[in-house]
Amino acid sequence: MKRVCVVITARASYARIKSVLEAVQRHPELQLQLVVAASALLDRYGSTVDHIQRDGFPVAARVFMQLEGENLVTSAKTTGLGIVELATVFDNLKPDVVVTVADRYETMATAVAAAYVQLPLAHVQGGEVTGSLDEKVRHAVTKLADVHFVATNMAAERVIRMGEEPSRVFVTGCPSLDLAAQVLNGQGALDFDPALRYGGVGAPIHLSERNYLVVLQHPVTTEHEVARRHVTETLHAVKAVGLPTLWFWPNADAGSDGTSKGIRAFRESEGAPNVHFYKNMSPEDFLRIVMHSRGIVGNSSVAIRECSFLGVPAVNIGTRQVGRERAGNVIDVDYDREQIVQAVRQHLQHGRPERSALYGTGQAGVRIAELLATVPLRTDKRLTY
Amino acid sequence: MKRVCVVITARASYARIKSVLEAVQRHPELQLQLVVAASALLDRYGSTVDHIQRDGFPVAARVFMQLEGENLVTSAKTTGLGIVELATVFDNLKPDVVVTVADRYETMATAVAAAYVQLPLAHVQGGEVTGSLDEKVRHAVTKLADVHFVATNMAAERVIRMGEEPSRVFVTGCPSLDLAAQVLNGQGALDFDPALRYGGVGAPIHLSERNYLVVLQHPVTTEHEVARRHVTETLHAVKAVGLPTLWFWPNADAGSDGTSKGIRAFRESEGAPNVHFYKNMSPEDFLRIVMHSRGIVGNSSVAIRECSFLGVPAVNIGTRQVGRERAGNVIDVDYDREQIVQAVRQHLQHGRPERSALYGTGQAGVRIAELLATVPLRTDKRLTY
Amino acid sequence: MKRVCVVITARASYARIKSVLEAVQRHPELQLQLVVAASALLDRYGSTVDHIQRDGFPVAARVFMQLEGENLVTSAKTTGLGIVELATVFDNLKPDVVVTVADRYETMATAVAAAYVQLPLAHVQGGEVTGSLDEKVRHAVTKLADVHFVATNMAAERVIRMGEEPSRVFVTGCPSLDLAAQVLNGQGALDFDPALRYGGVGAPIHLSERNYLVVLQHPVTTEHEVARRHVTETLHAVKAVGLPTLWFWPNADAGSDGTSKGIRAFRESEGAPNVHFYKNMSPEDFLRIVMHSRGIVGNSSVAIRECSFLGVPAVNIGTRQVGRERAGNVIDVDYDREQIVQAVRQHLQHGRPERSALYGTGQAGVRIAELLATVPLRTDKRLTY
Amino acid sequence: MKRVCVVITARASYARIKSVLEAVQRHPELQLQLVVAASALLDRYGSTVDHIQRDGFPVAARVFMQLEGENLVTSAKTTGLGIVELATVFDNLKPDVVVTVADRYETMATAVAAAYVQLPLAHVQGGEVTGSLDEKVRHAVTKLADVHFVATNMAAERVIRMGEEPSRVFVTGCPSLDLAAQVLNGQGALDFDPALRYGGVGAPIHLSERNYLVVLQHPVTTEHEVARRHVTETLHAVKAVGLPTLWFWPNADAGSDGTSKGIRAFRESEGAPNVHFYKNMSPEDFLRIVMHSRGIVGNSSVAIRECSFLGVPAVNIGTRQVGRERAGNVIDVDYDREQIVQAVRQHLQHGRPERSALYGTGQAGVRIAELLATVPLRTDKRLTY
Repeated sequence: MKRVCVVITARASYARIKSVLEAVQRHPELQLQLVVAASALLDRYGSTVDHIQRDGFPVAARVFMQLEGENLVTSAKTTGLGIVELATVFDNLKPDVVVTVADRYETMATAVAAAYVQLPLAHVQGGEVTGSLDEKVRHAVTKLADVHFVATNMAAERVIRMGEEPSRVFVTGCPSLDLAAQVLNGQGALDFDPALRYGGVGAPIHLSERNYLVVLQHPVTTEHEVARRHVTETLHAVKAVGLPTLWFWPNADAGSDGTSKGIRAFRESEGAPNVHFYKNMSPEDFLRIVMHSRGIVGNSSVAIRECSFLGVPAVNIGTRQVGRERAGNVIDVDYDREQIVQAVRQHLQHGRPERSALYGTGQAGVRIAELLATVPLRTDKRLTY
Repeated sequence: MKRVCVVITARASYARIKSVLEAVQRHPELQLQLVVAASALLDRYGSTVDHIQRDGFPVAARVFMQLEGENLVTSAKTTGLGIVELATVFDNLKPDVVVTVADRYETMATAVAAAYVQLPLAHVQGGEVTGSLDEKVRHAVTKLADVHFVATNMAAERVIRMGEEPSRVFVTGCPSLDLAAQVLNGQGALDFDPALRYGGVGAPIHLSERNYLVVLQHPVTTEHEVARRHVTETLHAVKAVGLPTLWFWPNADAGSDGTSKGIRAFRESEGAPNVHFYKNMSPEDFLRIVMHSRGIVGNSSVAIRECSFLGVPAVNIGTRQVGRERAGNVIDVDYDREQIVQAVRQHLQHGRPERSALYGTGQAGVRIAELLATVPLRTDKRLTY
Repeated sequence: MKRVCVVITARASYARIKSVLEAVQRHPELQLQLVVAASALLDRYGSTVDHIQRDGFPVAARVFMQLEGENLVTSAKTTGLGIVELATVFDNLKPDVVVTVADRYETMATAVAAAYVQLPLAHVQGGEVTGSLDEKVRHAVTKLADVHFVATNMAAERVIRMGEEPSRVFVTGCPSLDLAAQVLNGQGALDFDPALRYGGVGAPIHLSERNYLVVLQHPVTTEHEVARRHVTETLHAVKAVGLPTLWFWPNADAGSDGTSKGIRAFRESEGAPNVHFYKNMSPEDFLRIVMHSRGIVGNSSVAIRECSFLGVPAVNIGTRQVGRERAGNVIDVDYDREQIVQAVRQHLQHGRPERSALYGTGQAGVRIAELLATVPLRTDKRLTY
Repeated sequence: MKRVCVVITARASYARIKSVLEAVQRHPELQLQLVVAASALLDRYGSTVDHIQRDGFPVAARVFMQLEGENLVTSAKTTGLGIVELATVFDNLKPDVVVTVADRYETMATAVAAAYVQLPLAHVQGGEVTGSLDEKVRHAVTKLADVHFVATNMAAERVIRMGEEPSRVFVTGCPSLDLAAQVLNGQGALDFDPALRYGGVGAPIHLSERNYLVVLQHPVTTEHEVARRHVTETLHAVKAVGLPTLWFWPNADAGSDGTSKGIRAFRESEGAPNVHFYKNMSPEDFLRIVMHSRGIVGNSSVAIRECSFLGVPAVNIGTRQVGRERAGNVIDVDYDREQIVQAVRQHLQHGRPERSALYGTGQAGVRIAELLATVPLRTDKRLTY
């Protein structure tokens, strides 16, 4: 039995890796060691740990590590503290391989701790290109990782060009699509009232008419002081469009406070009569809602990955997703209420775009588990040039 | 005035960056903020901080951060703790640029803290290739850094191939050669008794006859359990050669304990009548001694960099320097007393090799300071492909 | 010049120690080294650091150290991280004495760091008795401290009975009264509109009529899950009384989230038409408002200390202040809306109580500074029995 | 089953608590959760963790937490880091009670973490009086602890006078005597060659003649710079007495480096022909050797506790044990070679003193386990006056 340790530090990472967890748990030669840390433990970000346990994944260790402040200094300290504690966790759990997901700032903690303790490190979703601190984090993690499970062919090519051995780079597709594939294949019914199930505040929304928008807008790490202005533009746009809207609260990033404040201030001063705000939702329910929506607005990668696969129109705002490969479902706009309104209207006229397999076919979890079971796991490597 | 914050975490890093410190201190548009941390503060590794202060560099902050244990887990924790504390230091010193040196494991702390606090990060000595954990650290730091001061043309090419913007990569030569250049140009007189000045234990050595060897052998990070066997081979070889030998105690790396124990045990059981052991020495005196020696033995990069520049014969043992570019002064051998003896004898027969400019011309410090003063310092970057 | 290092970790501690800071800054033989840390740096708790700087105190070091989560585990980790970082700060600032205030959980960080680095530690406000974790913290800090500046004669007696040398225990009065004394002596005019100056949300309040209540209710550390129920009782009571009310947001304690949620939920569901909520206020303005109010409700020590001195009626709810000495201005009640309403009405009938000097005469800051300058500062001590 | 979490941070603490571990493990209603941390994990201090595992105690968590440097700043940081990590450990192990031993600086980490996470804290060996930092630590831990297992009646009285509830203070005797009692009752045969079993360096010693001394001298925390001079006095004295001597290497305290250096320098310069130096030994073997010796010299509490019980003559040097209750076996002297020599000779003339039950009767482990199983465990407390 190979012990596979997966570290989950945020709600979004859980959604993205869940199908891998399932596949590891089902694999006869693998044993799952799940570590839940950082904002995934915090009530303010939706107590992801509770969802994880309800979904049947036992938690091997919990690590509170997130400094309060949501600024650049605390991001660094959260990461440092994470290394300190994850080193202890790894020393006690003794995994055979550690899996880290994507490019959130605190994934660096998992990567450094694993690399330094000389555990083979598998990185999911390397080789992509975006803006901001994520960009540095993602590629630094690539240089610390020993096995790479990437989403697209172009991502594989980039990882290899950075000097990684081609034999250790695998195009598995993005595991976040696995859940989308499940939702698409028969689990997509909108048979629940989201306000009833998840609370939240604001206007009542009737899903059954399938005539609503979804908004998910994260603060942009490197411009956190303008986060408030950014979110205000979107709020104005959504109000102007007037469609019922389900708005999802952002993650624990440097600056989310600016975003939160912007939302609160707008509700007090302008009012948002067509919007219902949610703090958290199970990834399945979230995807069900997204799948049947008229479109998604914001700067989440969901709009680009899952929505390309599901064929949902997306309005992508600002620089957060610059560089990420896009299928035909995305219209890019600036932080500008008018541009946002116009893009939404354009989508509403044209209807649903083609579905795309750019980011995978929905089998990433199973493929990654199989590779973890069979690929030789080594910690020594060397630049290929 | 641009504030240039340099973080020094070890004796070897100080020697390597000293000429940069001098050049920054002399530059009219730069202000030096020197942070001394980790083993550079510790008596057991030669109290580098005292040398630094005696050399006239004011210390802006001291940070004890090294966990005891010299194993993989404590290396990780030292690094994590370093991030936590350096983030505070940077938040209080507010530098305009942070400089980190080479590839020791704890340089990752400087790199992550600076990148996350969004300070421009300058990396000295990226783009080289070696074995072990250093390899991962070095390239991960490259992906976190914004400006690259590399030693050789090949290093520059590698950094650029990893996706860094060519306009931010500068071949400055290795700053450790600057000191070698000073020693070579008139400051090289062997006008002191090292045992008198630095203590140490073992046989008396007469430098004036210029008929002695120098040994500097570090434990190899990823094989620390065999460190003791490794050092014992060298001890046997040096004893067999019989030349007076100055042996320098290794750095604070995972496993240095194995090395230390090996040395102590050998002295107790076998005796080392021709060897004098030193714990530390000023970099200048060390280079003077190396320059006039019959050759250097071990696995230090000094043998490959400084000694190529100085024209000193070198016997390089084992895998630690695999991948590093070599001039003609190096004979590579295995951890094997016979091979070591044979290589030393071969050098003794052939005499001194040609001097080489592979790693620079001795002007790196001045060039780096000038570039820090003039290059636009930005923290945003993106893979070039 | 003796360097006096004061560590401020929360809004309430600043208010409490401000007169000491002023007196130290003015004292010809003392030099102030102010360290601002934990929630005192955080926007969510009112950015106390900005008030501090605006008040003319230079900040020698900032230390983000507060873990997010507001639970027991994160309280411990915040404290541990604080020790780690404050040890570095003390090592760099080299103070002659460290001052810590009262009994918040993170004051233990200051106390341990100072005691371990063998700096003389002065503790302000030891010897009092309350419930909850504060009780353990306060007396443990007493056992780590070398000089004790206590508020009352009974506090002095308790500190001495715990085995401290009588010659190191000084009854200075509580420095929080110094500000109250200033406000009382001519700086108490209600010449500002709090909503204009401090924002906040809720009903407009007219101070000039001096017909309003003040509420300040902290979550109780050891019962944080019921914090929400507690605050809801008070909200109902305040609504039932119907007087205009200024409600102050609680501090960064384990459980403040429960309190915050309770307030938000009440506003959404019940409405609070006579209440204006404030997140922060300068201590002076706060005391001005308290001084002219019809009474204070909640569980803050302000109700017991400052309000006894100012002669303001107080309704003290629950167990948080159990054990604290009281003058005649306090009515104690349970977490029960009816009891609260009744107590407020009783006060309204009886009018203002006598002013009391139980907690001092308003000269604590000056006395403490003078003692810091003259008392021999030693770090060795021994139980007196 | 009550989960009893014991945190062991040093070799000496293990010896002292071992009988409690055994009794907890055997108790039908208790489950042992053993955490091994700090110097107990380090090779340099004898790898106590290996002894623990060989003795049959499973280790629930390992925590590297000791900063390197052995100075005041690193003592503080070790403690802070310990709190951070032990909070995580407690959060994951969920014990019903935490046990901390005595007064080493890092026991504060266990105490703060447990108290803050609101786990009942049992403190073993409170209420004693000594010099140095230990004194502050011990009494501060008492104020954080909920149950007190003290060694002597006087210790109980002191703990109660400090304001602890008499019903929570139990005179159990010192558990370190339990092992002494076992050794005394039939397990004391000197049937091994210590040099063969434990290595070490120096002169061969023949135990069978029972004509030897034992030395155990720790650096004194608050005077670490003179540690070297102190140890040198003892070395001269032991050499002058001339009896075969087993000298045990000191613990991981601030300053042990001074002691270590002193020993090394003395061996190099003066020679110690009658001394064999040991780094570590099983507590049983150590006590066997002590029991049959002609006397113990140094400043260890073993000389005062175990040796009073065993009736072994002791020469106690310096201030480290000032304030500790003594039976008739102890002669106190200064750091002075002549005084030490004279005291040893006086003991040699008078022969073995009476055995004393001052520190217990050898049943502490069993009594403590029984009390842990039966005493109500609460975390709320309040000064009794």
